[in-house]
Amino acid sequence: MSDESNTPHTHLARSTREDIHIRGKSLTRDIMGQMTFTQLIYFHVCGREPTAAQVRVVDACLVALAEHGLTPSALATRMVYTSAPEAMQAAVAAGLLGVGSLFVGTVEGCAAVLSEIVDDEEGMKDAALRVAREHRRTRHPIPGFGHPQHKPDDPRSLRLFEIAESEGTAGLHQDALMELGRAVDEVYGKHITINATGAVAAVLADCDVPVAIMRGFALIARCAGLVGHVHEEQRDPAMRAIWRAADSAVPYAGDDGE
Amino acid sequence: MSDESNTPHTHLARSTREDIHIRGKSLTRDIMGQMTFTQLIYFHVCGREPTAAQVRVVDACLVALAEHGLTPSALATRMVYTSAPEAMQAAVAAGLLGVGSLFVGTVEGCAAVLSEIVDDEEGMKDAALRVAREHRRTRHPIPGFGHPQHKPDDPRSLRLFEIAESEGTAGLHQDALMELGRAVDEVYGKHITINATGAVAAVLADCDVPVAIMRGFALIARCAGLVGHVHEEQRDPAMRAIWRAADSAVPYAGDDGE
Amino acid sequence: MSDESNTPHTHLARSTREDIHIRGKSLTRDIMGQMTFTQLIYFHVCGREPTAAQVRVVDACLVALAEHGLTPSALATRMVYTSAPEAMQAAVAAGLLGVGSLFVGTVEGCAAVLSEIVDDEEGMKDAALRVAREHRRTRHPIPGFGHPQHKPDDPRSLRLFEIAESEGTAGLHQDALMELGRAVDEVYGKHITINATGAVAAVLADCDVPVAIMRGFALIARCAGLVGHVHEEQRDPAMRAIWRAADSAVPYAGDDGE
Amino acid sequence: MSDESNTPHTHLARSTREDIHIRGKSLTRDIMGQMTFTQLIYFHVCGREPTAAQVRVVDACLVALAEHGLTPSALATRMVYTSAPEAMQAAVAAGLLGVGSLFVGTVEGCAAVLSEIVDDEEGMKDAALRVAREHRRTRHPIPGFGHPQHKPDDPRSLRLFEIAESEGTAGLHQDALMELGRAVDEVYGKHITINATGAVAAVLADCDVPVAIMRGFALIARCAGLVGHVHEEQRDPAMRAIWRAADSAVPYAGDDGE
Repeated sequence: MSDESNTPHTHLARSTREDIHIRGKSLTRDIMGQMTFTQLIYFHVCGREPTAAQVRVVDACLVALAEHGLTPSALATRMVYTSAPEAMQAAVAAGLLGVGSLFVGTVEGCAAVLSEIVDDEEGMKDAALRVAREHRRTRHPIPGFGHPQHKPDDPRSLRLFEIAESEGTAGLHQDALMELGRAVDEVYGKHITINATGAVAAVLADCDVPVAIMRGFALIARCAGLVGHVHEEQRDPAMRAIWRAADSAVPYAGDDGE
Repeated sequence: MSDESNTPHTHLARSTREDIHIRGKSLTRDIMGQMTFTQLIYFHVCGREPTAAQVRVVDACLVALAEHGLTPSALATRMVYTSAPEAMQAAVAAGLLGVGSLFVGTVEGCAAVLSEIVDDEEGMKDAALRVAREHRRTRHPIPGFGHPQHKPDDPRSLRLFEIAESEGTAGLHQDALMELGRAVDEVYGKHITINATGAVAAVLADCDVPVAIMRGFALIARCAGLVGHVHEEQRDPAMRAIWRAADSAVPYAGDDGE
Repeated sequence: MSDESNTPHTHLARSTREDIHIRGKSLTRDIMGQMTFTQLIYFHVCGREPTAAQVRVVDACLVALAEHGLTPSALATRMVYTSAPEAMQAAVAAGLLGVGSLFVGTVEGCAAVLSEIVDDEEGMKDAALRVAREHRRTRHPIPGFGHPQHKPDDPRSLRLFEIAESEGTAGLHQDALMELGRAVDEVYGKHITINATGAVAAVLADCDVPVAIMRGFALIARCAGLVGHVHEEQRDPAMRAIWRAADSAVPYAGDDGE
Repeated sequence: MSDESNTPHTHLARSTREDIHIRGKSLTRDIMGQMTFTQLIYFHVCGREPTAAQVRVVDACLVALAEHGLTPSALATRMVYTSAPEAMQAAVAAGLLGVGSLFVGTVEGCAAVLSEIVDDEEGMKDAALRVAREHRRTRHPIPGFGHPQHKPDDPRSLRLFEIAESEGTAGLHQDALMELGRAVDEVYGKHITINATGAVAAVLADCDVPVAIMRGFALIARCAGLVGHVHEEQRDPAMRAIWRAADSAVPYAGDDGE
């Protein structure tokens, strides 16, 4: 055994003078003009070509997550863009840094829970109840559940389930999410919304997107939304109005009491 | 006239309990299941629906820019990912910060030059010669030109021109780029490659993508590529090998000579 | 009770035409020319003035963490700087994104463990043994322990303990770290280095720096180090050599086997 | 001549088992317990030890720039922190991304202008008038001049000049700034504030801080301020109040008119 066995490799890209190969395919002959961006995203990240149905479901997920108004991410992007217009990439990066555990990044946490339920040997129903009880006991929010505005149901979730079913990709993870939804309602004694990141987690997992990289799909989607905010800030600047509003909303309290 | 006239507005998104509207369209009825991600990107950023031909050209641009191997951006992403695996968004953001004036961000600089040539009253040929001479004189590189590896021509550029022509979107900006290519070869006395960011600048401008936001398309494309690097780093970690190689490549020189 | 009770406040800064107040002090009269940067850092972040001894200990921590050569953070900074020299802030930000759970950010994890040991009612010795056993059982690395190069001891740790003792700030957290060091050696059956982030965690906690913000001190220190890398990259550019070395270290493996 | 001549080197740090050397000094013997953080910053970035007077002036600059309330940078940090509390480094990085051409980053632009005036063979007075006229003609703001609130003078600037004079570091760059101030008032026909970044540019340049890395000092200073905002957000969360205020300040305008 040589030391070579410890050398890492890349499967992603190789450039020659005449072409670029992405995971073994010719970029100019097999990808450009042949694949949509969504097909390329799936192929590049997951390492295999998606089916036509999977492409349509992934498209639905990406468009569902791209834009949600003046979110904290969008506000960060707008603050940074106006402060440093010479570096648009920094504004978009600042916004993406907000795709963390609280908002869109929950897609990953939910997918992990769904995988656990799917793989449970005691059956999904028992597993879902256990997950719901455990979260309630420890007062941790269940990733993928709850929304301040979309009640009783998140319209994006209902539509994603519908698309996954009509495309025939709906599978065990969507079943697990439904089971978990019923368990949550029972354990908490009230109906809690399955939000868009929960639904995306289920339908992407059923399209064989690995849990470990699922947040990456949210990042790609949100990147597009943030570029839209940069362009709007270029045409109809809102940063100073936001700044003034923020300043008024958080008054100075001297240095008493801390 | 009220103070309202100074209030900025957003056209991007509005949420109600039952739906989300993106630029006046229902996300669940008009966008999810109806638009591909590429259609949504163009619609969201540019504020109007692309034609079918424009969608195919934008798709070709996005897949062309997504991935180019272990670029400085990809290296930054891998360094940060392994240092802080709890925050994948930070790794992707770090890589996007490298989409600046030197590499992919040049798409914006090239588009600005092409617009100038298109709008020149003395005609594109004279304008192109003037631009080439001015850059040579001031020793500024011409954005969109030159490539260390792809010579004499960048295969992505040739393919993009072909697609834009077959889709019927090719227009004045592509003409301007061809004119500029001839002028560059004449003024510099040798053939210089029109690289992929130059070609993307021309074909996106011919699809009516505003110059000011063109770098945003590069960011969205590269975001997908960087997510691929994160996932490869998860499965076949290369960070430590890169770190060791970097350390060997840059020896410590004591404190003499500075 | 009015709604006002839910209004957040800021204690940090207030500007008037003639002055700026930072936590109730006049910036121009009480801070500039009166406080060192280290005093201001402690005062601003912690909300109270440090003693002279605390200032010297915090200074020692900050200089200890500022620079450690071509770390992954420094590599990310250099990659981004050369790609986007128009935005130095993006390069420094990219490097800071690497101050996460694996490297310097461990200062926070270690401080949390030390607080737990200090507060344990059964005494520090039992608590330390329990912590060491629990980490060994779950195969989680103990934050603040271990170093690939500095063996058997990290010279920065020894020096920090010495300074904290001679300044008279050393207290329960340093005791807890010593106890934990003994427990680790016993439970793992070998001596494991207390690294610099472990020592910083102890001595800063003994200076009453809250655990929750301790990583912030590492960020400030490392920020200075990364600015040094930017300036060296300006004068003696290493990015391309690093890039080439990285490329050689990670060969393309086609698309087989994944 | 060997290939070695093209090898880049680093002068910053070298680690051995027993010590770390920073620019030729032993970290544990010569730096920890011997240098303040400010001394280390200057030594590490500039490559030589500052005088005691230079240290006091650099301290004054760093404390002057650290904090200025709920700036766009601080707002970006707070947005990202609450969205991803698991990665404090991302919040601080997001805020630093706002240290660009519009706000604090202007220190670099101003320093470049001052160097040009100092080096002008026709004398500083003529050079200052030429710079002021050129900026007025092209309607570019003069970096380091103007402030919405601090009128007629920025209290931080007055204090910095005073400190630099009493420490004896004040030199040609401060003279150039005064000359430029007079020229600006004459050319624009009104008094324009010399703001804090202008004053910092002058006094740091007079301390031999290179123009090219001056923005780095602003980044280090602001990093400390942003850590303060993170800790306040931990104790008295303001993000949601800011978010609500921002949302109200920027109403949705449908999709008409764009």
